[in-house]
Amino acid sequence: MKAKVYVTLKQGVLDPQGKAIHHSAELLGFEKIGDIRQGKYFEITLDQGLSAKEALETAEKIAKDVLANPVIEDFSVVIDETAAESA
Amino acid sequence: MKAKVYVTLKQGVLDPQGKAIHHSAELLGFEKIGDIRQGKYFEITLDQGLSAKEALETAEKIAKDVLANPVIEDFSVVIDETAAESA
Repeated sequence: MKAKVYVTLKQGVLDPQGKAIHHSAELLGFEKIGDIRQGKYFEITLDQGLSAKEALETAEKIAKDVLANPVIEDFSVVIDETAAESA
Repeated sequence: MKAKVYVTLKQGVLDPQGKAIHHSAELLGFEKIGDIRQGKYFEITLDQGLSAKEALETAEKIAKDVLANPVIEDFSVVIDETAAESA
C-alpha cells in the first residue's frame, strides 16, 4: 500500500523557486502561464498489514512531523490501495 | 485552469534524499514504512482561454522541457479545470 503526500506552500508564502521556474519558462517561449508554484511530493510504501485507515493516520503523522513545515506549508495525503509493493 | 505536474525518479534510480527521510522517520519511531521516495510537485496556473487539450499539451511541454530531467525522471500531468485562478 502506498501513501502519496503532496506538500505545498501556503497561499501568500513567497515562492522564489517557482518564480525562477516561471521566468525560465517564459524565456523558453512559454507565454500562457499565469504562475508556477513548486511543492514537494513523496511516495511512502507502507506495510501491507495496515488497514487503509491506519495507513492514512500513519502517513498523515509522518507528513506532519517529518515532511512538511506546518508553519508555511500545507499537505494532503492520498492512500493508493492498489499500488503493488515495489522498489 | 491549473495543471498539476508530478515528477518522480524512475524506478532503479537511487534516491539518497528519500533514504535520509526514511532513516529520520525511523529514528522518530515510525516503524511500518517500507520505503520513502521523494519527488517534485508543481502547480501551473494557465490562461483561462486555453481548452483542456491545449492546457494539457502546454503543461506536458513545460514539464518535459523545464521541470523534469527525462533521463532519470518520469512525470505525469493532471489538468484541474475546476481550479479558480488564484495567487
